Amino acid sequence: MIQSTEQSILDTHYMARAIELARNGLYTTHPNPRVGCVIVRDGQIVGEGWHVRTGEPHAEVHALRAAGELARGATAYVTLEPCSHHGHTPPCAEGLISAGVARVVAAMQDPNPEVAGRGLKRLADAGIEVRSGVLEADARALNPGFLKRMEHGLPFVRVKMAMSLDGRTAMANGESQWITGPEARSAVQRLRAQASVVLTGADTVLADGARLTVRGPELGLSPELTALALSRPPLRVLIDGRLRVPLDAPFFKAGPALVATCVPPAEQYRTGPECLVIHGANGQVDLRKLLQALAARGVNEVLVEAGPRLAGAFAEQGLVDEYQIFVAAKFLGSTARPLLELPLTHMSEAPLLKITDMRAVGDDWRVTAIPVPSASV
Amino acid sequence: MIQSTEQSILDTHYMARAIELARNGLYTTHPNPRVGCVIVRDGQIVGEGWHVRTGEPHAEVHALRAAGELARGATAYVTLEPCSHHGHTPPCAEGLISAGVARVVAAMQDPNPEVAGRGLKRLADAGIEVRSGVLEADARALNPGFLKRMEHGLPFVRVKMAMSLDGRTAMANGESQWITGPEARSAVQRLRAQASVVLTGADTVLADGARLTVRGPELGLSPELTALALSRPPLRVLIDGRLRVPLDAPFFKAGPALVATCVPPAEQYRTGPECLVIHGANGQVDLRKLLQALAARGVNEVLVEAGPRLAGAFAEQGLVDEYQIFVAAKFLGSTARPLLELPLTHMSEAPLLKITDMRAVGDDWRVTAIPVPSASV
Repeated sequence: MIQSTEQSILDTHYMARAIELARNGLYTTHPNPRVGCVIVRDGQIVGEGWHVRTGEPHAEVHALRAAGELARGATAYVTLEPCSHHGHTPPCAEGLISAGVARVVAAMQDPNPEVAGRGLKRLADAGIEVRSGVLEADARALNPGFLKRMEHGLPFVRVKMAMSLDGRTAMANGESQWITGPEARSAVQRLRAQASVVLTGADTVLADGARLTVRGPELGLSPELTALALSRPPLRVLIDGRLRVPLDAPFFKAGPALVATCVPPAEQYRTGPECLVIHGANGQVDLRKLLQALAARGVNEVLVEAGPRLAGAFAEQGLVDEYQIFVAAKFLGSTARPLLELPLTHMSEAPLLKITDMRAVGDDWRVTAIPVPSASV
Repeated sequence: MIQSTEQSILDTHYMARAIELARNGLYTTHPNPRVGCVIVRDGQIVGEGWHVRTGEPHAEVHALRAAGELARGATAYVTLEPCSHHGHTPPCAEGLISAGVARVVAAMQDPNPEVAGRGLKRLADAGIEVRSGVLEADARALNPGFLKRMEHGLPFVRVKMAMSLDGRTAMANGESQWITGPEARSAVQRLRAQASVVLTGADTVLADGARLTVRGPELGLSPELTALALSRPPLRVLIDGRLRVPLDAPFFKAGPALVATCVPPAEQYRTGPECLVIHGANGQVDLRKLLQALAARGVNEVLVEAGPRLAGAFAEQGLVDEYQIFVAAKFLGSTARPLLELPLTHMSEAPLLKITDMRAVGDDWRVTAIPVPSASV
């Protein structure tokens, strides 16, 4: 009989492996969460699995298949509470029961109101020993968008910016290409690939001819992960309140896109990209309503890649969950363009952040910061 | 007989200790360099020493005294080539020879033209085995100012700035106090204490009532190091081209100061602070000439704590060796004051930097960056 503290150490060990497996789904599972599963019997891992994409089997199904008969009497580690409802696939709780597992350890409860503890209860009712809350913070970090959407009806909004060390994004005349180096651009490609939506504004698309696509060779991932990422590119969303971007812009030629606007789309949009009309104050698209509409479509994570005005508007309205700021080691000087169009008069109005990470990315540095308190909901 | 690779490992080990000892002089040795010494005999450290301040014994003297008769046949590790000339104290090379040491390992040659290899040659001529270049980079990092002054006739210029994450230093109305937290302010106190000169401009002194003194309790050092730091406060230098700062300003009341100006000092300066008249272009103090004048007085390290205009002028003239930027995790917005008054038109003019370090300091972060290429000389 293993002591309970030792059991706890082993639970953490196997859950860490399940979380590692779940990360394989970083680029593909949305709108579903990233989930990993490990089945352990007599101190041996007998089955592993992770969820790849919606409509395909859940992590538990892959792991149970791999374990086969060895699942009987085993412990299953899952990074998210097994589902109890019939969706695209049969409920995993039932699968674990039929397979005869003796114990189920979940990293966290499923925030999906259709599950929300019912999966674990179903298992316990079937006589299975159940534990929840192992490496919960890590498991939550796997799925910031899925959790935000389930808990608040909004996607997780990550704002990517690139600036010089003195906080500038471009010269006054607009000159701005390649502030940061290839490693930073590769990191941005991965941020795009893991997002459900990449969102930008008309200024960026008009000024830079931006396409905001995911380019496989620049991802810097293994061939397997690159193929997965390219199989599920993010939806590109353009905020264009007055439909200023012409339909022959590179942005539209690069693939499917969604346009959020304030004006009814003209005739030519009949065959062009889908348009969402979302009126807001001052003739501008209501950003919160847009995010709610995206969440209703199953969008978990939004990457905002926009100019200082749109990024500033997201910041001002408290809609940002995380900033990813790439810092180039140069000074662009005091007449260059600001990081955020955010006119403040008093220090007391200054948005507070918490810098959670700073690390070198090639010759540049990446700063991760979250608003304090976190994005209002 | 120890193998030469093993001897090399041991040399590195003892030199690391000598460098650690040298650091005790961080706040006091200027205009002299920081130097440490370790004497090793039969695998035992038999003497240690470090230089405290000008006029007092060099590191080698302390270490030889501690070793006594045990120095005979021993190896001496010194972070800087022993001196061969008579200054305030007798030459250390002679001391090592009289003590009968068998071997001397130096981290680096002395760049002082009065020494420059002559110390090591004197030792070799006396039959002592000599090695140089062990942990040389670390030894150079101990004395950036002493080396710059010896090699280029200029002090090492470190520019300290505090900014928000979006590169701003104060609100448009000047509101700026306490952008960063107590840990960052303590780090700034230590930067002041290790400098030979703390340099500022009239704007800063007039607007903030800045005194730029070293405050013992805020240093966050041991009582011993605090006492050393306070025994040798930096000279405070004010650049005030038109002598706008009144003599009853807190800056002048806080202790001795030097004023660099373009106008001949008025009558009342007869009893006030020393004035250096250094004419430059546009009726402004010539910064390079001022630095040369400071170097000629034995100033090794200058800490510039100034507003965006003066800091920008140092940057523009290529006089900066290192930036220490304290970053507060907040956005001050796009109308707030810039980090540097540095108007540039084209990206090609943007000064390139290399970020050599980023680390958390309390709730703030500290970025160390050096110009690329380094400060012109």
